[in-house]
Order: sequence, then C-alpha cells, then structure tokens
Amino acid sequence: MIDPAAPAPADLDIPALVLRMADLLQQRHWMMAAAESCTGGLIAGACTDLAGSSAWFERGFVTYSNEAKSEMLGVDAALIAAHGAVSEPVARAMAEGAVARSQARAAVAVTGVAGPTGGSPEKPVGTVWFGWSVDGAVRTERRRFEGDRAAVRQATVHYALQTLASLVEQP
Amino acid sequence: MIDPAAPAPADLDIPALVLRMADLLQQRHWMMAAAESCTGGLIAGACTDLAGSSAWFERGFVTYSNEAKSEMLGVDAALIAAHGAVSEPVARAMAEGAVARSQARAAVAVTGVAGPTGGSPEKPVGTVWFGWSVDGAVRTERRRFEGDRAAVRQATVHYALQTLASLVEQP
Repeated sequence: MIDPAAPAPADLDIPALVLRMADLLQQRHWMMAAAESCTGGLIAGACTDLAGSSAWFERGFVTYSNEAKSEMLGVDAALIAAHGAVSEPVARAMAEGAVARSQARAAVAVTGVAGPTGGSPEKPVGTVWFGWSVDGAVRTERRRFEGDRAAVRQATVHYALQTLASLVEQP
Repeated sequence: MIDPAAPAPADLDIPALVLRMADLLQQRHWMMAAAESCTGGLIAGACTDLAGSSAWFERGFVTYSNEAKSEMLGVDAALIAAHGAVSEPVARAMAEGAVARSQARAAVAVTGVAGPTGGSPEKPVGTVWFGWSVDGAVRTERRRFEGDRAAVRQATVHYALQTLASLVEQP
C-alpha cells in the first residue's frame, strides 16, 4: 500500500522552474496562489524570489494549523477530522479554496508530513498530498519523498511547481 | 529625510533566531502569525524550517497584492490608496489584522520595496515598513536595507524575527 519514497532529483533547480511558470502564467494573463501546510511558505517564497513576481503571483495561504485551513481556505473541519490533514480530500479542498478565495486562476496546495516526527505507518515521514486547481480543473496526487525535513520540503516545492507549470501549459 | 541604507549584518543566523523565538513563545504558550508582502512567505518558511514549529507557528498571510492585504487582513483599501502599500499605516493594519484573524498573540508584518524595480525617491529600493503586534501592543518601524533583492529579503526576515523575539521577551 505504501509507495516507495522517491529519490531526490539530482538537481532541484527551483529558480529555473519559477521562471518557466512566470512565463506561462503571463502568456495567459493568469495569476497564481499557493496554499501551504508542510512547506510553510516556501512555495510562495520561491515564487516571489523572482523580481516582478507581483505580475503573476497573487497571494499565499500558509495554513499551518487545522483552524487556518478551515478559516483561510474554507476546508470543512469535518473533512479534516474524518481523513486527517494529510489526505486527498483536504488537499483538494485547499486547492479549491485557494482559487475561490483569491484572484488566481491557478493554484497549488500541499499538505504532508515533513518530519522528523509526525509519521505513521499509513502516512510515513515524507508523505505529501498535492492539489492543483488550474482553469477550473482540479487534480490531486500523493507522493513520498526521501530525506530529512529540509529535503522533503524542497522536493515538495519542486514537484508542486513543476506540475503546476505543466498543467498551466496544457490544462 | 531618507534614512541611509543599513549595512547587511555580517552573519544573518536566521535558524538560531527562530530557535530563540520558538523557546520564548513556548514558555508563554503563545502562537505567532506572519503577514508578508515583500518577503512573500520567507518569514513563515524560516519559522517552519524548525521541526515541531506547529506548536508555536499558527499561520501566515502572504498578501502580495493589495486585494490580498484587504481581503486576508482587513486592511482598508482607502489606507493603501492614501499612503501606498509600503507605509506605516499599512504595516500597522497588517500586524493588527494578523492577530485579529488568527489564533496568534504575536505577529509580525512586513511591506517593502525588495527591488530591483519599484523604488522611488521617497521609498527607495530596500525600504521596508515593519509592524509587530505582541500581547495587544503594536509597534512599527521603517528600515532601509542594502543589497540586491535576495539580500533585502533576507535582512527583512532577520530584522522581523529579531525584533519579534525581543518584544515577546519583554513586551
């Protein structure tokens, strides 16, 4: 049942990815938003590292607590209680909430177990649920990343943006 | 009128600062929140780099657009129109909004010109307005930091957390 942890990509060139995504979003005149739990602001931080990012990055929700997920993104507390914060329904609701509560047409949401504690047999450290909402269509995916807390967070930022860019390119 | 740019501190040991703040907040059983414009999530990202940060970091508002400042933090749009997003009243309103719209008792807000563009004679690149709200008291301060976009953002994260820690220690 448990997917093997993905080896860390040899080269996580996040700035190059951000540049590509900035181009794609600006071609379409779309704004983006990020809803982050385990990455705690790093996706927004990576996007806004690029000068001029206000042209396409609209806002970020760092929903670290469960209350924040409900209050900021409208995630039903019952959904969190039933499935846990690290789950497909919560990732989906976060992505949908990020678009509904912003000016963005593209959004990525992440909720996972960055570690070193907080893992369980069903959701070991490195488990991340992703949600993307692009032009009205929502996609979710579960991944597991290897490494320490910093490595899991960086790999999560990379995969979140890589997939968002692909979906913006070909929704 | 224009304050000289502050030289970058020789050593911006942000992880050590986060560790100190985590200790201080946990001693008081307080949660914190961050409201970020020019740092775009880096303050939240630095806080949540520390394992176990969910015990004291509650949420972050990455209010990159003016609409986000108003919708997420309740900053009056008329205040932004009158004073500009990089101003004392907006930094104050962001800090107040971050506490009012979270479970946090301590919050920091930053709004500034990270550059390389967006500067003006009155608000040159590197200008940052800070707001802190700690246990009901609000403090604001303007600083100007030297260096490129990355340096300005890092110096802003450092000063935001350094001052927040001092205010939590001795409100």
